[in-house]
Amino acid sequence: MGANLPLLVWLLDYGAAAIFALTGALVASRQQLDPVGFIFMAVLTAVGGGTLRDLILNRTAVFWVDRPSLILLAAAAAMLVFWTAHLLESRYRWLLWLDAFALSVAVPAGIGVALAAGAPPVVVVIMGVITGTFGGLMRDVVGNEVPLVLKQGELYVTAAFGGALAGTALVWLGADRGAAVLACAAVTLVLRIGSMAFGWRLPVYRPRPPRS
Amino acid sequence: MGANLPLLVWLLDYGAAAIFALTGALVASRQQLDPVGFIFMAVLTAVGGGTLRDLILNRTAVFWVDRPSLILLAAAAAMLVFWTAHLLESRYRWLLWLDAFALSVAVPAGIGVALAAGAPPVVVVIMGVITGTFGGLMRDVVGNEVPLVLKQGELYVTAAFGGALAGTALVWLGADRGAAVLACAAVTLVLRIGSMAFGWRLPVYRPRPPRS
Amino acid sequence: MGANLPLLVWLLDYGAAAIFALTGALVASRQQLDPVGFIFMAVLTAVGGGTLRDLILNRTAVFWVDRPSLILLAAAAAMLVFWTAHLLESRYRWLLWLDAFALSVAVPAGIGVALAAGAPPVVVVIMGVITGTFGGLMRDVVGNEVPLVLKQGELYVTAAFGGALAGTALVWLGADRGAAVLACAAVTLVLRIGSMAFGWRLPVYRPRPPRS
Repeated sequence: MGANLPLLVWLLDYGAAAIFALTGALVASRQQLDPVGFIFMAVLTAVGGGTLRDLILNRTAVFWVDRPSLILLAAAAAMLVFWTAHLLESRYRWLLWLDAFALSVAVPAGIGVALAAGAPPVVVVIMGVITGTFGGLMRDVVGNEVPLVLKQGELYVTAAFGGALAGTALVWLGADRGAAVLACAAVTLVLRIGSMAFGWRLPVYRPRPPRS
Repeated sequence: MGANLPLLVWLLDYGAAAIFALTGALVASRQQLDPVGFIFMAVLTAVGGGTLRDLILNRTAVFWVDRPSLILLAAAAAMLVFWTAHLLESRYRWLLWLDAFALSVAVPAGIGVALAAGAPPVVVVIMGVITGTFGGLMRDVVGNEVPLVLKQGELYVTAAFGGALAGTALVWLGADRGAAVLACAAVTLVLRIGSMAFGWRLPVYRPRPPRS
Repeated sequence: MGANLPLLVWLLDYGAAAIFALTGALVASRQQLDPVGFIFMAVLTAVGGGTLRDLILNRTAVFWVDRPSLILLAAAAAMLVFWTAHLLESRYRWLLWLDAFALSVAVPAGIGVALAAGAPPVVVVIMGVITGTFGGLMRDVVGNEVPLVLKQGELYVTAAFGGALAGTALVWLGADRGAAVLACAAVTLVLRIGSMAFGWRLPVYRPRPPRS
């Protein structure tokens, strides 16, 4: 068998857009914006990473230009948050967890597109990382949050990188590309959730104490 | 009759570049930069939104690459501000008002280009919002100002969105595209100025008070 | 004779990537990131400016998509910093000086590519400035540093602009393009180092004292 790569990427693009849109709207709620502000932040987060991916890969059309329903989905997610976010105990906690799921869907969407475009392995890995992290990065820079990529001692870029690397390596070893994309999603999710739930981490840089 | 769409977009591109350049230079003045810093901020603001629009629409050439006079115009506007900004009572007030006019010229430039490219309605609306807001957003992020898109309770993205939506709807209803672009400019301006002068606003998100 | 333009640009791209990567990793060290965070910041800084240049010039492929070795070089530079940065007396001082050299290599890489693409003079100058400054700008925005482009009273954008202008003017006057690219590097470096070492500067904007 083997998963259908174009269909899989199509599904992942919608999934990433929907979940990232929720996180963008949560940041909008923390800034107390109006409904159009929610939609703006949601759409920026939903399609930011994939747009950069498509521009760099020089695709004929950026993915959402051909599928405006992605934008409508992100807008609907924004309104859902506008109407229900006050029911949440901690919006920041929801933001972190939803972002973990969005990351785990967007990284495989990134490598899937790069694989379909025939990019070399290093570029495939980078497209995974870019697609996974840049939507959230734009959300945090525009929305005045500390970028998650800078959170000390959490596996964030590392989760994206690990997932993208695992998927790319599997393809290089001869695995079915659809299966590799699914494995990429799993590795990214496990690394990110493991870091949040169990404190998994890599050693961080620490300067030596000043010489006395 | 009916307005000439290419000519109209051409004029709007120049108008948006000139006015956005003034706002970029005003931010440079708030950071006490040197003349080249003024020109850098002016050019970034002047062409940032339209550049993103053209990249996403995959136009053969970004608009100012074929028309370097746009850059020279923005540079001239920067020097005008460098020499005269000390005459202004409140540079921030000028920044806000000039930005309102630039927004109202850039949003129709965005929908005009997208209409000419045959984009679907959702994409036309988004191109209006991107062209209108991203130059100012880059200006604010680079120049260390609170992004105007985050100003609570003001119609900013909403003005851009309302104008873009009005223009796109008119075309969809069969109106002349040039007339629709002009209507877009008018709606954006009225919404933004109405918000600044009369406090028009949409309800913003407010979390419920904590449960006691 | 005359320098070989494609070879020269090729070398400059590698040089800029390596040195900018060091600065990106130094910013990562100031944020105490993990090794993957170092690589992320290094690669972002190394290829950010050139990527924007290539997108705007509509090149068939962004420069590092065809040459993934650039990414591996940047990653190696990141690990070098991760392992040795604690030996430095002042990481910020190293950041500033390395950035000066990276700027002086990236600006000529920018004008070289634009000249080879047959861009008009104004666009050539802008491509030099974009390629030189945007990698560092993205590094500073993402890494939460005050952007160097905003440092009061230092020639930074001005050094990039001066170098790009000098190189473009030489070509316009009939000089060999390779020689002009080298002159561009020299002028950028002299202006930037002169500003850092000897305090060279342009007059900055100062508002008049408030009227009494």
